[in-house]
Amino acid sequence: MTSVSEPRPAPDGALPAAGQPKPAPTGSRDLTALFAPRSVAIVGASDDTSKYGNWIAVHALRGDRPVHLVNRSRSSVLGRPAVPSLREIGEPVDLAVIAVPAAGFEAAVDDALAVGVRAIVGISGGLGEAGEDGRRRQARIASRVRAAGACLLGPNCLGVLDHTSGLDLTSNDFPRGTVALLSQSGNIAIELASLVVDDGVGFSRFASLGNQADLDIADLIDACVEHDGTRAIAVYCEDFHDGRRFAAAALRAYRAGKPVALLAVGRGAASARGARSHTGAMVTPAVVVDAACEAGGVEQVRTPTELAHLLQALLRVKPPRGGRVAVLADGGGQASVASDCLEHAGLRVDEFSPHLAAEVAAELPPTASVGNPVDVAGGGEQDITCFSRVTRRLVDSDEIDTVLMTGYFGGYVGYSAELGAGEFLAAHQIAKLARTHEKAVVVQTMNWRTAAADALREGGVPVYRSVEDAVWVIDRLTRRGQSTPPGLPELPPTAEPVYETGYWPARRLLTEAGLPFVPAVEVRTLEELRTAAAGLRFPLVLKALGDEHKSDRGGVVLGIRDLAALEAAWQEAQARLAPPSCSVEELADLSDAVELIVGVRRDPRFGPVVLVGLGGVHTELLRDTGCALGPVDRAAARRLLLSLRGSRLLTGFRGRPPVDLDAVADLVSRLSRLAAAHPEIAEVECNPVAASPDSVLCLDARVVLDS
Amino acid sequence: MTSVSEPRPAPDGALPAAGQPKPAPTGSRDLTALFAPRSVAIVGASDDTSKYGNWIAVHALRGDRPVHLVNRSRSSVLGRPAVPSLREIGEPVDLAVIAVPAAGFEAAVDDALAVGVRAIVGISGGLGEAGEDGRRRQARIASRVRAAGACLLGPNCLGVLDHTSGLDLTSNDFPRGTVALLSQSGNIAIELASLVVDDGVGFSRFASLGNQADLDIADLIDACVEHDGTRAIAVYCEDFHDGRRFAAAALRAYRAGKPVALLAVGRGAASARGARSHTGAMVTPAVVVDAACEAGGVEQVRTPTELAHLLQALLRVKPPRGGRVAVLADGGGQASVASDCLEHAGLRVDEFSPHLAAEVAAELPPTASVGNPVDVAGGGEQDITCFSRVTRRLVDSDEIDTVLMTGYFGGYVGYSAELGAGEFLAAHQIAKLARTHEKAVVVQTMNWRTAAADALREGGVPVYRSVEDAVWVIDRLTRRGQSTPPGLPELPPTAEPVYETGYWPARRLLTEAGLPFVPAVEVRTLEELRTAAAGLRFPLVLKALGDEHKSDRGGVVLGIRDLAALEAAWQEAQARLAPPSCSVEELADLSDAVELIVGVRRDPRFGPVVLVGLGGVHTELLRDTGCALGPVDRAAARRLLLSLRGSRLLTGFRGRPPVDLDAVADLVSRLSRLAAAHPEIAEVECNPVAASPDSVLCLDARVVLDS
Repeated sequence: MTSVSEPRPAPDGALPAAGQPKPAPTGSRDLTALFAPRSVAIVGASDDTSKYGNWIAVHALRGDRPVHLVNRSRSSVLGRPAVPSLREIGEPVDLAVIAVPAAGFEAAVDDALAVGVRAIVGISGGLGEAGEDGRRRQARIASRVRAAGACLLGPNCLGVLDHTSGLDLTSNDFPRGTVALLSQSGNIAIELASLVVDDGVGFSRFASLGNQADLDIADLIDACVEHDGTRAIAVYCEDFHDGRRFAAAALRAYRAGKPVALLAVGRGAASARGARSHTGAMVTPAVVVDAACEAGGVEQVRTPTELAHLLQALLRVKPPRGGRVAVLADGGGQASVASDCLEHAGLRVDEFSPHLAAEVAAELPPTASVGNPVDVAGGGEQDITCFSRVTRRLVDSDEIDTVLMTGYFGGYVGYSAELGAGEFLAAHQIAKLARTHEKAVVVQTMNWRTAAADALREGGVPVYRSVEDAVWVIDRLTRRGQSTPPGLPELPPTAEPVYETGYWPARRLLTEAGLPFVPAVEVRTLEELRTAAAGLRFPLVLKALGDEHKSDRGGVVLGIRDLAALEAAWQEAQARLAPPSCSVEELADLSDAVELIVGVRRDPRFGPVVLVGLGGVHTELLRDTGCALGPVDRAAARRLLLSLRGSRLLTGFRGRPPVDLDAVADLVSRLSRLAAAHPEIAEVECNPVAASPDSVLCLDARVVLDS
Repeated sequence: MTSVSEPRPAPDGALPAAGQPKPAPTGSRDLTALFAPRSVAIVGASDDTSKYGNWIAVHALRGDRPVHLVNRSRSSVLGRPAVPSLREIGEPVDLAVIAVPAAGFEAAVDDALAVGVRAIVGISGGLGEAGEDGRRRQARIASRVRAAGACLLGPNCLGVLDHTSGLDLTSNDFPRGTVALLSQSGNIAIELASLVVDDGVGFSRFASLGNQADLDIADLIDACVEHDGTRAIAVYCEDFHDGRRFAAAALRAYRAGKPVALLAVGRGAASARGARSHTGAMVTPAVVVDAACEAGGVEQVRTPTELAHLLQALLRVKPPRGGRVAVLADGGGQASVASDCLEHAGLRVDEFSPHLAAEVAAELPPTASVGNPVDVAGGGEQDITCFSRVTRRLVDSDEIDTVLMTGYFGGYVGYSAELGAGEFLAAHQIAKLARTHEKAVVVQTMNWRTAAADALREGGVPVYRSVEDAVWVIDRLTRRGQSTPPGLPELPPTAEPVYETGYWPARRLLTEAGLPFVPAVEVRTLEELRTAAAGLRFPLVLKALGDEHKSDRGGVVLGIRDLAALEAAWQEAQARLAPPSCSVEELADLSDAVELIVGVRRDPRFGPVVLVGLGGVHTELLRDTGCALGPVDRAAARRLLLSLRGSRLLTGFRGRPPVDLDAVADLVSRLSRLAAAHPEIAEVECNPVAASPDSVLCLDARVVLDS
C-alpha cells in the first residue's frame, strides 16, 4: 500500500495546487468584502421577475448570511421586509448590490459609502458604456469609492458569486468547482457553465467585469490567486484596461500554479465592430493580446467550447515535458484517426521500442497491434483489465510523455454487468496511474456519459467525446509543459521627447541609439550632392525625401554607378518631384542578406509592443511575424526571431550561411528600448533591415508620433 | 398561403434530392439481393452471446422476411430450428451471411452458390488480411462468386443493413435516416451512429466493407446513388481498391445530388503503420486521396465528429454560392466570438448596407447592434419573434449568403411558458424561411437539446452546440457551393515502354514529348566537349552525370564563362568524380524566373498523379504543392498552378511581371500525358522548372521506373 502519500484530486478531479510558495501580494487589494461579505444589501430588490433586482435577490436569499432588501417604494419584497434606503438598515452592511436605473446609481453609491459598505456591485447600466458623460460620471464615482477604502465591481455588471463563502449574487446557476470565472459577458459565462457540467467541472467564483470602473481584470485575477478554493482562472475579456497589469497578474497566477485561460475577441474586423457597439470596450489588436499572453503564461482559446475543453485539461493534467504520445485504442479505425490527428498537430506517435512493444504485447491477445498506435483488437471484451494493464506499461515507460486512450472504453458495461464492473475498476486504476506517475493520460470515448467515464473524471483524468478535442488539449498541454513565460519587461525611464519625424530625424534618432545604417548624407543642392558623392563608395542610391512612402514609384533610384548617373538622377528627381532634400546612400550588398522588418508600436492598453517579421517577398507570402511586449533584451529578441516560421532563413538554409543573429537581436533590442523610453512615439519601424552573415543594416526608418 | 409548392424536408430534416436526371448506371452491379433480399440465411448462427453469429441472427430475426439459421452441430438456435448446412434449407435463399471460422468459409460459399444464393456477406476473418495465402484464397473465392453472377461483401466484414427494406444483418443499432454509411471499421460506424443521433440524423443503409474481395467501395457507392432512400453517403475507408473507380462513383453521386463525405486515414506515419497491421489494407498517401476527392467532388473529414457535423449540414443546407455571412446573436460575446471564428476561416462578415441595417433595426429594440454582427441585446426576452423577423430580413437580402444564428435561442422557454411557445413558433418560421429561400441558415445554441432546437432540425436547419463547429460547416458548405469537381481524366492508350533512366534518356523522352529544355549536349571526351562548346552560348553549365542526385556537392559547375574555364571544370570533374559522361548546357537566365517542381507519380491505387509545387527556398518554407489525378489538360494544369498558396509569385507580385502561365500549364499537361501513357514509369520529375515572363525551361529531369 503506497496510497498514503498519493495525491488525490479535488471533487471535480482537479489536481492539488502546486506546492510553490505564494507570491507576495504586491499591493493587491483586499476583496474579502466582495467575495465573502458578512452581510449583503440589494438596492433595487424587486418582485418583478423580469428584473435583475429580482433575480439577484432570489439567489442572495438562498445563502446563510444576512440579506437586506432595499426598495424605494415598497415595504416588502419577496415576502420579506424591505427598507427605502441603505441608510435605514440600521445594521452594518459589508456589500451592497446596486441594481437601480443609471440616474439613481450615484446616490445609491453615496448612501453605501455613508453606511460603511466595503464592496459595491454595480448592476446598473447606462454609465461608462453610454458615452462621454457617463464615462466621466463613472470615473468620479469610482474615485469616491476608492477614496473611501471600498471597492466597486462594474457598473454594468451581472453580479458576483463565491461558492466557497456561500455567496450568490447572480441571476444564473453556476456549478460548484475550482475554476474562478471572470467574464465581461453574461451569456458567455452561462454558455461556459452549460458546457463544463458535462465534464464534471465547476466554479469556485464568478465575477462579472462590467465596465471595470474601479476593480479591473488584474485586481480580480490577483484576488483569485490568493483564493484557496480556486485552482484555475477562466477569463472572457473585451477590454484589458491596464494591459500590463493584466499580464503581471496572470504571471503571478502562473507562478502560483493557477493557470489562466483567456477567451478574447476582436481578432477580426466584425467582432471589433461588435465589441465596440456592445460595451463601449476598446478592443486590442490580437497580436498584442498574443504578446501579453506569452509574457504572462496565459492560455488563449477562441470559443467557449475550447475554454471548457482546456479547463478540464488544465485542472486535471500536469503539462507533459515532451510531445511523445502513445495511442491506446480499441479499434483500428480509432487508432488511425487519433494518430493522424496527433501527427497533424505536430505531436509524435513514434513506434515503440521492441522492449516496450513486447511489454504491451504481453498484456494483449495476439491479434492486437502493439507498435503504437496500440489496437487492443477485441482484447477489451476478452479481459477488460487490459486497458489498465497496458496503461501501466505505458506510463511506466520513459519513451512516452502522454497516453491517449481512444475509442469505446466506458461502453463495455453494455455487454454484461460483469464486464461493466471490471470496466469501472479499470477506470479507477487508470486514474490512479495517471495521478501517481509523471505522465499525462487523456481519454476520448464515444461512451462519455457512463459510470466508467465519470470514474475517470473524478479520478482526475480528462475525458472527451471527440478525438480532435482530446488531441487539441494534448497539443496545448504539451506546449505549456515545454515553455516558461519569459516574464514582463520593465519600462525604462521616459526620455526627452522627440518632435520631428521624417527620414533623417528618424535616422539620427536610431543611429544615436546604436542602430547600424548604411553610410549616407542628406543633400539639398547639387554642390552638396557632389561633396557627398566624394565621401561615399559607388554604387549609390538616391532617395527623394519628403514623402513618407519613400519606395514609391520614382522616389528611389538604386544602383547608381558613377557621378554622372548620380547627377542625372538628381536632376530628374528635382524636375519631377522637387523634394525638399535627398539622401545619397551607399548601396548595400544584399546578395547573402535576408530582409527583415523590425518595428515597435505603442498600444494604448499594453504599451510598447515589438514586432519582427521576414521582409520582401516573404512578408506577404508567409505573413510571418512575431510580437512581444517591449522592451526586449537581446535574449528575448533572439527568441522572437527564432519563433518565426521562416527562421530557417536566418539560421542557414539549403547551404546558405546563417545571418549574424546576435547583431539582429541587438538591433531589435536597441530599437525596443528606444521606443519604450519615448511614449510619444506611436510607431517606429526599420524596413527593410538587411541581415547578412557578417553584418546587419537598416536600409530605411520611419517614426510616427502619437497624434 | 404559399405552402403548396414549398419544399419539405425528410423526417431527419434532409433536403429533397436534387431534381437532376440520374446518371446512367454505367455498368453498376445489381445489389438488390444484398440490400433487399427476399430471404436470408445465417451460416454460423449461434446461441453464444459473444459471437457475431449470435448478434447478427438476433438482429435478422427482428425483420419480416424469412430467416434461416444454419449451425453445423445444433438443431436449434435462438429457440428456432436450425439446419446443418445451406443445402438443407430446401427453400430459395437470396442472401447468405457466413460467420464461420476461416477454414470453413470457402465450403460455405460453395454451398451458397450451389443453392442459388445471389449475395454473400462474409463475416469470417482470417482470409485476405492474414497474409499471402489468405489473399490468394480470397481472390479465388471472389472470382467464383462473380462467375456465378452473385456478389460478396467482405469477407472480414461486420454485416449489412438497409432500413428502407427492413434488413438488419449487423451487430449494432443504427438510427433510421437518409445517410448510407459505408465503413471499413465497425467502431467508427458505431461512433458515428452515437454522434448523429443528437443531430436527428440517421442511416438509410450501412455496409461494412471488409476486405473488398469482390464488392468494393465503388460498387457500393454506385448502389447508393441508385437508392431512393439515400440522400448522402458517408465513407470510412482505409483501402480504396481501384481508386479511379472510387472517384468516378463519387462523381456520379455528386452529379445525382448525393454528397459523399469521406473519413480516410493514413495521413501520418503512425496511422499508416496502424492501418497496415489492422486489416492488411494498403494506405494511399494523403495527397493522392486529396486529388481523387477533388476530382470526384468528395468532402473529406478527419474524425467521426467532423463527419457527423458535415452530414447534418450536407443533408439540410444547399451550399451557398458566396461567403458573405450575417451573424445573428443574442449576446455581444457570442456575436464577437462567432464573427472572429468566421473571419478566421476566411468568410466575410461585412458591415450591412445602411438599408439592411435599418431594416434589421426596425425589428429590434434600440439597444441592439444591427451592423453585422447583429446582437439583439435583450430583444429576445422582449419579443421572441425578433429572431424570425430578423432572419426574414437577412434571407431576403441579396447582401447575405448565409445566416449564422448563435447564442441562447432555444432556452427562452426557461423564462416562461409563453416565451417558450413563441420560441417554438419562431423556430418553425426560421426553418421555413431557410427552406423557401436560396439561403443557408445554420444555428449554434447552448440550448441545443430543447423543443425549439428540435423544431429547427426537423424543419431542415442544422443545429450545433459549439460555434466553431457551425463556422466549420459554413466554411465547408461555402467552398462546396463555389466549386464544381473538374471530373475524372481519361487515361491515354499505353505507349511503348521505356527501359532507360538517367539524365539524358529522361531528357530525350521529355524533349520528344514537347517539354522545353535549355540547349545542351552530352559529352564523353574532351574533343566532344570542345565541339559542344562551339555550338552553345556561354555562360555554360557542366553536369557530371551518373549520379541521381546531380545537384550534390561538386557534381554541377554553374556559370562557366569561357572555354578555358569549361575545360578546367571538365578536368576537375574527371579527376574527382570520373563520370561516365557529362552534360554541357547553356546557363538559363533566372533573374526573373520562378522555380517550380513538376512531377508525376504513379500510385498503385489511383494511377498517375500530377504534382506541382514552388521550388527553391519556397519548397521547404511554404511546403506549397498541388496534386491532381493525371493526366491533366492545360486548363486543369492552370487551375492546379493557381491553386498554390504562393501562386501570386506566378501571376505577378510586388511589381514583378507575371510568368508565362500558359507555357507552364502546357509543360505540366505534356508531362502528365507522357507519364499516363507509361505505366512502367513510377515517377518522373522536372526540378527545377524555371518559369519566366516569356519562357519556361526544364533545368533537370529524372525518371524512376517501377521496380
